[in-house]
Amino acid sequence: MNGNLKIQDNTIGIVGLGLMGSSIIASLLALGHPVKAIAPIHGEKEIGYKRILEQLHLCEKFDILQAPVEEYLSLLTVSSEYNDLEDCHLVVECIVENLAIKETVFKKIAEVTSKRTILASNTSAIPISILQKAVPDPQRFIGIHWAEPAFATRFLEIICGKETDEETTAAVCKLALSWGKEPTVLRRDIRGFITNRLMYAVYREILHLVEKGDTSFADADKCFRYDAGSWMTLMGIFRRMDYEGLKDYYTAYSNIFPLLSNSDGISLQMQKIVDAHSRGIQNGKGFYSYTRQEAMQWSQAFSAFNKDIFHLAANYPERISETSNGTK
Amino acid sequence: MNGNLKIQDNTIGIVGLGLMGSSIIASLLALGHPVKAIAPIHGEKEIGYKRILEQLHLCEKFDILQAPVEEYLSLLTVSSEYNDLEDCHLVVECIVENLAIKETVFKKIAEVTSKRTILASNTSAIPISILQKAVPDPQRFIGIHWAEPAFATRFLEIICGKETDEETTAAVCKLALSWGKEPTVLRRDIRGFITNRLMYAVYREILHLVEKGDTSFADADKCFRYDAGSWMTLMGIFRRMDYEGLKDYYTAYSNIFPLLSNSDGISLQMQKIVDAHSRGIQNGKGFYSYTRQEAMQWSQAFSAFNKDIFHLAANYPERISETSNGTK
Repeated sequence: MNGNLKIQDNTIGIVGLGLMGSSIIASLLALGHPVKAIAPIHGEKEIGYKRILEQLHLCEKFDILQAPVEEYLSLLTVSSEYNDLEDCHLVVECIVENLAIKETVFKKIAEVTSKRTILASNTSAIPISILQKAVPDPQRFIGIHWAEPAFATRFLEIICGKETDEETTAAVCKLALSWGKEPTVLRRDIRGFITNRLMYAVYREILHLVEKGDTSFADADKCFRYDAGSWMTLMGIFRRMDYEGLKDYYTAYSNIFPLLSNSDGISLQMQKIVDAHSRGIQNGKGFYSYTRQEAMQWSQAFSAFNKDIFHLAANYPERISETSNGTK
Repeated sequence: MNGNLKIQDNTIGIVGLGLMGSSIIASLLALGHPVKAIAPIHGEKEIGYKRILEQLHLCEKFDILQAPVEEYLSLLTVSSEYNDLEDCHLVVECIVENLAIKETVFKKIAEVTSKRTILASNTSAIPISILQKAVPDPQRFIGIHWAEPAFATRFLEIICGKETDEETTAAVCKLALSWGKEPTVLRRDIRGFITNRLMYAVYREILHLVEKGDTSFADADKCFRYDAGSWMTLMGIFRRMDYEGLKDYYTAYSNIFPLLSNSDGISLQMQKIVDAHSRGIQNGKGFYSYTRQEAMQWSQAFSAFNKDIFHLAANYPERISETSNGTK
């Protein structure tokens, strides 16, 4: 399968080779982008390189490579020299969630890049409107938020800061579409962005219901796996309402919105779980308990499921009426 | 493939041959249960029979039948005689969501069945605690809420009324497990049950965000399809938190719960859509617009997706650590 690798014109810079940085780099390499990676932390270069290689092998396993892994790797340079970012079309920062450190990094990036380079942060914790103040041209600054594993998720949130201009937003949307993503644009950098914020609304309500004794954690999980899970990937939220018929929803809203939890606080049960230093599968303690083997099985299952749902979703594209794939 | 049909000992009665009733009947036949169907409405018998046949042919297409459709059909009797329910282990009411009519029907069912027969309603609108007052033995009365298509969804909500006893709940759970369902038990019949209620929390928040201009209906759909959709069927809600690591969630809760919408009312945009007599794909007007062909394509896609996600979910069972299926 040599020689099938189509190399993209745009070089992309990634600063930070942590979990997300490495995952994003691998996904961009898999798409044929030359990538200039900057590893600001000592020792990060080697660990990051290993992670990127692992992700590329996963890409191979997912059947999304057209050439051997080595050819993709040859598109990558890793250094600690910010000057290497000079010719990048886009530079994405993926470092630790610390405002002061990010500001320093963005000042360095802004110094070495041209005014045409798009500057982006993968942050999910610091508002873009604040971050973009660190650079002299905030209009070319934007948030681009990947989900992991970056190569296998169609989800990509694009977050506009107060000063981000329309040209930058449009350019990033165009790039995202060329990557096979289904980008969602957030016009204001609200906390939690969209999906996470909507899931917080779910957490608030379910913690309240479990606290009242109406149901259990395990039963709530089953509900979402087998009910919401049975249409989510196909339809999302509003399409689902269209499909079910809007009238009933309207009545149900009026009846149920006033009953929902408006709590600001965390339920006692959740507090207890956190107080017990539960870190989920990482230390085997969470809403469920895990042996080391079970934790590993969940990781393997998640990887396998990612592949399955990635390929399944490909059969049901967003623009269903423009294709015949969704009607097999 | 003759002779492979294993017939269950328990006969189940279904009252009402509407969309849900027919779907439930087909799923029970596909599981090998003899079914006594009561069609109280004139003309329902013929339409219901046709629907059941259609659903059984879908079961065949989904590769879940062990014998020809005709053999399954032979397990079904349809009549308007409540006396036929006499020997049923369980009778499920699936008629119109009208309290007075349901009360009359349950009185008739209670008269002809033994005290050991479990009485159930598929209602999603009327509290079980109210319905169960219609019968002399409310402890054997319970809610069983299927999702459509009943044969292809593992989701099943079991709703206890105030007077439902533990024996009845346990018996229905056991039945549900024998049907290959992943039942969730609701200890109190709260409005909207679990999944719907949690989705209402999502609707409240997203309608608020769209109203503020932070995002659009279409972008919210993409978020849920490609982010939530990429783990929902595998993990549900709490398992997902365990997987991601609980500490970050805790901090995020504290920050974001106070920002969430606490609105009782419906957003202006939603109000406008409803005022325009939008009924979604049924009349081509909703959050999106649909030609007749597009509406048909969505129906076909939903049916195909049901099959795909049904088989996909089978590879990732609830009790992942007890199997090797989830770790392929």
